[in-house]
Amino acid sequence: CKLWGGRFVGDTDPIMEKFNASIAYDKRMWDADIRGSKAYAKALEKAKLVTAEEKDYILHGMDQIHDEWAKGVFEVKPGDEDIHTANERRLKELIGEPAGKLHTGRSRNDQVVTDMRLWLRDAISILKGNALQLITTMVERAAVEIDVLFPGYTHMQRAQPIRWSHWILSHAVALSRDVEQLQEINRRVNVLPLGSGAIAGTPFNIDREMLRQELAFDDISINSMDATGQRDFIAEFLFWASLCLTHLSKMAEDLMLYSTKEFSFLTLSDAYSTGSSLMPQKKNADSLELIRSKAGRVFGRCAGFLMTLKGLPSTYNKDLQEDKEAMFDCFDTVHAVLQVTTGVVSTLKINPSVMEAALSPDMLATDLAYYLVRKGVPFRDAHGISGKAVFLAESKSIPLNQLTVEDLRTASPLFSSDVSAVWDYSSSVEQYSAPGGTAKSSVAAQVEHMRTWLKKQVQ
Amino acid sequence: CKLWGGRFVGDTDPIMEKFNASIAYDKRMWDADIRGSKAYAKALEKAKLVTAEEKDYILHGMDQIHDEWAKGVFEVKPGDEDIHTANERRLKELIGEPAGKLHTGRSRNDQVVTDMRLWLRDAISILKGNALQLITTMVERAAVEIDVLFPGYTHMQRAQPIRWSHWILSHAVALSRDVEQLQEINRRVNVLPLGSGAIAGTPFNIDREMLRQELAFDDISINSMDATGQRDFIAEFLFWASLCLTHLSKMAEDLMLYSTKEFSFLTLSDAYSTGSSLMPQKKNADSLELIRSKAGRVFGRCAGFLMTLKGLPSTYNKDLQEDKEAMFDCFDTVHAVLQVTTGVVSTLKINPSVMEAALSPDMLATDLAYYLVRKGVPFRDAHGISGKAVFLAESKSIPLNQLTVEDLRTASPLFSSDVSAVWDYSSSVEQYSAPGGTAKSSVAAQVEHMRTWLKKQVQ
Amino acid sequence: CKLWGGRFVGDTDPIMEKFNASIAYDKRMWDADIRGSKAYAKALEKAKLVTAEEKDYILHGMDQIHDEWAKGVFEVKPGDEDIHTANERRLKELIGEPAGKLHTGRSRNDQVVTDMRLWLRDAISILKGNALQLITTMVERAAVEIDVLFPGYTHMQRAQPIRWSHWILSHAVALSRDVEQLQEINRRVNVLPLGSGAIAGTPFNIDREMLRQELAFDDISINSMDATGQRDFIAEFLFWASLCLTHLSKMAEDLMLYSTKEFSFLTLSDAYSTGSSLMPQKKNADSLELIRSKAGRVFGRCAGFLMTLKGLPSTYNKDLQEDKEAMFDCFDTVHAVLQVTTGVVSTLKINPSVMEAALSPDMLATDLAYYLVRKGVPFRDAHGISGKAVFLAESKSIPLNQLTVEDLRTASPLFSSDVSAVWDYSSSVEQYSAPGGTAKSSVAAQVEHMRTWLKKQVQ
Amino acid sequence: CKLWGGRFVGDTDPIMEKFNASIAYDKRMWDADIRGSKAYAKALEKAKLVTAEEKDYILHGMDQIHDEWAKGVFEVKPGDEDIHTANERRLKELIGEPAGKLHTGRSRNDQVVTDMRLWLRDAISILKGNALQLITTMVERAAVEIDVLFPGYTHMQRAQPIRWSHWILSHAVALSRDVEQLQEINRRVNVLPLGSGAIAGTPFNIDREMLRQELAFDDISINSMDATGQRDFIAEFLFWASLCLTHLSKMAEDLMLYSTKEFSFLTLSDAYSTGSSLMPQKKNADSLELIRSKAGRVFGRCAGFLMTLKGLPSTYNKDLQEDKEAMFDCFDTVHAVLQVTTGVVSTLKINPSVMEAALSPDMLATDLAYYLVRKGVPFRDAHGISGKAVFLAESKSIPLNQLTVEDLRTASPLFSSDVSAVWDYSSSVEQYSAPGGTAKSSVAAQVEHMRTWLKKQVQ
Repeated sequence: CKLWGGRFVGDTDPIMEKFNASIAYDKRMWDADIRGSKAYAKALEKAKLVTAEEKDYILHGMDQIHDEWAKGVFEVKPGDEDIHTANERRLKELIGEPAGKLHTGRSRNDQVVTDMRLWLRDAISILKGNALQLITTMVERAAVEIDVLFPGYTHMQRAQPIRWSHWILSHAVALSRDVEQLQEINRRVNVLPLGSGAIAGTPFNIDREMLRQELAFDDISINSMDATGQRDFIAEFLFWASLCLTHLSKMAEDLMLYSTKEFSFLTLSDAYSTGSSLMPQKKNADSLELIRSKAGRVFGRCAGFLMTLKGLPSTYNKDLQEDKEAMFDCFDTVHAVLQVTTGVVSTLKINPSVMEAALSPDMLATDLAYYLVRKGVPFRDAHGISGKAVFLAESKSIPLNQLTVEDLRTASPLFSSDVSAVWDYSSSVEQYSAPGGTAKSSVAAQVEHMRTWLKKQVQ
Repeated sequence: CKLWGGRFVGDTDPIMEKFNASIAYDKRMWDADIRGSKAYAKALEKAKLVTAEEKDYILHGMDQIHDEWAKGVFEVKPGDEDIHTANERRLKELIGEPAGKLHTGRSRNDQVVTDMRLWLRDAISILKGNALQLITTMVERAAVEIDVLFPGYTHMQRAQPIRWSHWILSHAVALSRDVEQLQEINRRVNVLPLGSGAIAGTPFNIDREMLRQELAFDDISINSMDATGQRDFIAEFLFWASLCLTHLSKMAEDLMLYSTKEFSFLTLSDAYSTGSSLMPQKKNADSLELIRSKAGRVFGRCAGFLMTLKGLPSTYNKDLQEDKEAMFDCFDTVHAVLQVTTGVVSTLKINPSVMEAALSPDMLATDLAYYLVRKGVPFRDAHGISGKAVFLAESKSIPLNQLTVEDLRTASPLFSSDVSAVWDYSSSVEQYSAPGGTAKSSVAAQVEHMRTWLKKQVQ
Repeated sequence: CKLWGGRFVGDTDPIMEKFNASIAYDKRMWDADIRGSKAYAKALEKAKLVTAEEKDYILHGMDQIHDEWAKGVFEVKPGDEDIHTANERRLKELIGEPAGKLHTGRSRNDQVVTDMRLWLRDAISILKGNALQLITTMVERAAVEIDVLFPGYTHMQRAQPIRWSHWILSHAVALSRDVEQLQEINRRVNVLPLGSGAIAGTPFNIDREMLRQELAFDDISINSMDATGQRDFIAEFLFWASLCLTHLSKMAEDLMLYSTKEFSFLTLSDAYSTGSSLMPQKKNADSLELIRSKAGRVFGRCAGFLMTLKGLPSTYNKDLQEDKEAMFDCFDTVHAVLQVTTGVVSTLKINPSVMEAALSPDMLATDLAYYLVRKGVPFRDAHGISGKAVFLAESKSIPLNQLTVEDLRTASPLFSSDVSAVWDYSSSVEQYSAPGGTAKSSVAAQVEHMRTWLKKQVQ
Repeated sequence: CKLWGGRFVGDTDPIMEKFNASIAYDKRMWDADIRGSKAYAKALEKAKLVTAEEKDYILHGMDQIHDEWAKGVFEVKPGDEDIHTANERRLKELIGEPAGKLHTGRSRNDQVVTDMRLWLRDAISILKGNALQLITTMVERAAVEIDVLFPGYTHMQRAQPIRWSHWILSHAVALSRDVEQLQEINRRVNVLPLGSGAIAGTPFNIDREMLRQELAFDDISINSMDATGQRDFIAEFLFWASLCLTHLSKMAEDLMLYSTKEFSFLTLSDAYSTGSSLMPQKKNADSLELIRSKAGRVFGRCAGFLMTLKGLPSTYNKDLQEDKEAMFDCFDTVHAVLQVTTGVVSTLKINPSVMEAALSPDMLATDLAYYLVRKGVPFRDAHGISGKAVFLAESKSIPLNQLTVEDLRTASPLFSSDVSAVWDYSSSVEQYSAPGGTAKSSVAAQVEHMRTWLKKQVQ
């Protein structure tokens, strides 16, 4: 029987029934629903709406239902349109009349959003752990491979020599912002809505502060209409997932480039590659492609949900039912992506000799300009002179460092034999010792910074 | 065992395995996969790559697999990462060695996109039927209720009296464009990619024209890289779903307004309403809210998939695996929405007396201006004069039609006693007899137009 | 002349030139660009890359350029492809050679992102002010009109009597979360990237801590590749704008409903309404429609930019040029929307008598159930009994409160004459006195809570 | 003065005025607006609502306004909130009273959508021309360079040898679908809404068929509410732009890969490259990056507009004002992108020797399997054997074709000396001679197919 059984007389359409039901997916919140109901039963007792004995019946019944779900034997029955109905129906089977008192002053409107906040709080905690694991892996790998040089690219073109660890850390730093943002969102998630009723609040003497403590929320919602009708905390989470995976799509794209035959900077572990059903030689970086693709998937959930929210009247409307599948799918996706990325990053093999061999003298053209700057030439002019040298080398089809001093002097008389010192990649990177730069000391400082940050996160 | 079993030596990560596998959802294409393989077996025989006997083994084996799926007894095993692997694995169990020849010259790249096109072609046909059913319901309802007048709104404010059927038809006409667009998309869907291999085409004497006929495609793909690497036909379908449901979200919004207590123009059948777990008197138009919400859902799929496609290198990349869940979900959603909408529209009850009572004299202010236009006043001036009359009536707190001729003459001396003829709602709507207007003749012509159009669609 | 003048020999395509140029919009950052360059000139002096005299030339030149922009007389010339080129070109005209030293060790990659962060920081400060002004207006209006009752709706159906101020506060509370989120974003925006060069950092003795202080940033970027290549702070801002306007689209939708003829709860000021070119009587709530529509606009910017970011290789790619128009448009839109909304909210007139007249006895059906609960009936049963009473009243076509005690007893024998006390709307709302509820004390507490919060924001 | 001048008494808010006005952008439709008004003046004469003389005044006045716009001297004045108001205000200045008759029976609701359809029809025609020019360039380039071989990639990994022209055509074929879709959209765009009034139709004897002919529309809108309230034709166009640019983002990504130092398959013309402000040696493929980025931009417009449309009540709401900027921006963007892409494709230089040198024997592993297939080995087994050969070659660190026959026999006894014929790239590609394949004959057939198609488009 439906919860509103007293009144309706018409038949229902089976397609509509199915369309309306959410049990197929919201049953994932069974544990949160039970926790919420147990806390509510205690508040009902305190408000003298159930007796101590009735409360105990409810708690024991709920524990039994918990066991059934945990063991996978809970039976969803026709008419259980959502997890709340299902649990309450089962409670009634188990304990009889006191079950009918559990919903006193509670509405599905405040019940469902309480469940979601409980569930999402746990999910956020798991994702934070996954992200920290990935960042740790990256930072420690950066620490170990700090001496490897390779080309830094801008516009997918070789730009300047950098440390491989500088590249790793650039992505780790971006992910650390994701962790910080996730924690900020969690503060807005971890707020108790229970006691808001359908729209107007609770008319009984329900102690919301006690509920907050029982359920370990940080705060109590300020306004009952806002508490039951807003899903901004879900939208924030969906966007967080989108931005986090956009970060990872960028890293995956780099790694895919680096693992092409043409770059050959690194090789994925077989565990994160697959072959081709047609071409025996193929080893595809499927893991990276999946990581890249999921940014679109989760952002689609975010876009869809925000479009659903747009222009909705306030308070609860059934449109909000779109919130749960989006939340679950984004959690599952980010949860998998973070773990797979950790696996990829921890097992890939780099090819340092190929990486260093990819450094070429033209990548030091900026250093050539700096050589002139140090001799007093304004940078703009030095840049132009260095550009002429590059052009000259290209015209002669020789590397930039093969130009003679005489060649160079056609561009500027300030060149002399000491220019030969420019053509050293190691010296080049060591120039960039200011904070954030690619010199060894600077990269080591980044490693330390991140280690300190990581320690703070797990406290 | 994996299809590329020959080479890999490393272990795999169970999370990666699960992340990579698509069998959980692509098994929905089991029938398309079997049809494609049967056609391909015939082409292999014609190319002398299998014998007639081997072909028969394959066909019979495939028929048996078909039965297993149809009866729900097909057993998906660990290692069946997708429907193609699963069916081929089962074929080998059933017929042994000839199964190993079925993939000759075929790649999963052309196989999967063939399956998708077969599946989607059927899905489109079903959705077209659902849409035509809905349009028919609307047109016939419009025919029956052609005499009911009610307020036409712009900006959610009462604008001019119109026929209720005019409103119904406005939505039916929009849906008819959806049907036309769906058919155009179908022409781009119904193109054979099989025989494109992984990227380069097929090196054997595979008769693609014969495959086309066997599988009832309209055309053959022009270029093998395009055929295996593009998913624009999916993106088009996802956007079609989005636009169709955006149309319905608009209609649902109107119906929700009309079914508020404040409007009270209509009542939904109980079959499409639900109650409240807290408030016994509530009867909520959940069906309409769900319809409205799904526009966001499907557009999210479209947005997500397009984001996944953006900037992908050409040919097959694993990112494309996002195509199937999006396609299935949009089909399921639109399929349900169209049917539920048909149910809602066919069972709702209108309250004609309330609808007509909502017409008010100020909605005839334009007619008052036209009265002056017919007496030679330029429309801009007439509009201004009528506006003054409205203001006067508001100042006096009386309806516009209660102004005396003397009152009106303070705005313009051209008013005389014949102005009383303006205040008739039925006469007012009958003025709009040009094509597309709300006069009875014009609405009846729209009904006939749509009936003719519907007849053409089912031929 | 182009900045990279030294090398290129080919001609350019005028369409490409225009496609590539950003000066048309990035000139809005002229002030940020000048501030950044002045700070950089000081750092160059400290690093002995320019003399004190050269620094002064640069500072004075920059001040002169500032005046030209401020007075609207700065002349953009052909070849000024962006604001950075334009300002540097002008500096050279004004002070000659020292201008050529300003770019030493700086790249447009770190320059542009520094300018954006400076600009956005100011923009965020303005928007915060706009939002606080709106919230203040709402809270004070809620304080004044606390005694007005009207129907609370769920599913667009009358649900329970609530206070009008409770509705106002529900939206104010949501906006306060937007302000909090904006401040969190600002912490990630307000980080100095200057000194990151093109990708590798700065090779000279540039004091980044001094730059931070000069430009009043909170922090220094940790990694030069991350600093120049990430635009997540822009994406966060665009999403913030989307969520904030989604909140306002919801409020606008409510207000539009309430201002229909059918609801007639309130009237917009003429300043925020417009008329019709055809229908003299129309008064449209254009302001509310525009507010509602802008959620889509800004979310489009967010969606577009995230799609552009997806799968980009790391560091600077020209694709990132999409960041600025999105940022400007979202700022302009939210800036206008917040101000217009403040105007709408502060000038609309409510019609308390109509609002209270819209309360109907069936909205007290939950109270009727609670009546039984207080007599010991489990809520589920009480809900069913109350539902029967509603059905009975509907069958008799009388209001719920016109049922006699005898009528009610057909549903439950527990009803007695004291049931008449249920039918009082004021008593009904006063039941909801728990935190967040709609009782007067509870709403007053919300007002105080928000006033305290507002005070903290402006400190 | 405002069009609805008769009634309002309150002041307006300057921010609201600006927020509400659209003249800043909709003035682009000045020509369409004039064409629509001239046709309407003729219809008014036929309906005897203006005299022949008045009609001539209007037509001459409109011609004069046309000249002012064309010469850039039309002066927009305060109060001209949109192009329709501006043109009508000017007409009144020029011809006096008859101007006031032009709006008889017309509403801005049908006027604006008529203007948009006229404007968009022209825009579509221009874009079609741009797309055909690009496709022609690609097809003719493919015809000329048909003999160049290079690696075909899947998953960004070398897959099989293909023709460079095969790659070019794969993108040209995708674009040809865009052209077909654009024409289908145009059929839905090119429908006359004029004569639909604000909502109810036209009450006068306006000959809509005459209007259709005057303005060269294909059809007349069926229902006046649908005609004035739907913007699906805009949404379709925005999505078309998104899909077209997604196609080009894919091509741009390929070209960017091919123009990296590591691939070195091709070099962009200097006209489509830019340099770095810091690094003198850099030559960045900015044109390709811009092309890639614009897919996000235009899809953002589509997403934003669809979100704005979601859940809107039917008929005209001010929210629809978001339609024009989205339309203009998508037109401008696609217009530029198509031309720049044509420039890029027609001027890039390929490096055939590097392209062919990138072919490697392991790319013939599939051919090695086919060698066995031709000796009777089922493909699955042959694939496994070839995989073992690849593994063996990798273990020995030699190319696959350096394995001796003895080596190969460890994998299968069927290998004999004739296996040497496998190692020929030209022979390999020539195998793929089925329709759509990469054999020369097949690619030549694709060229012919496209030439024929192109001819049909311009007829």
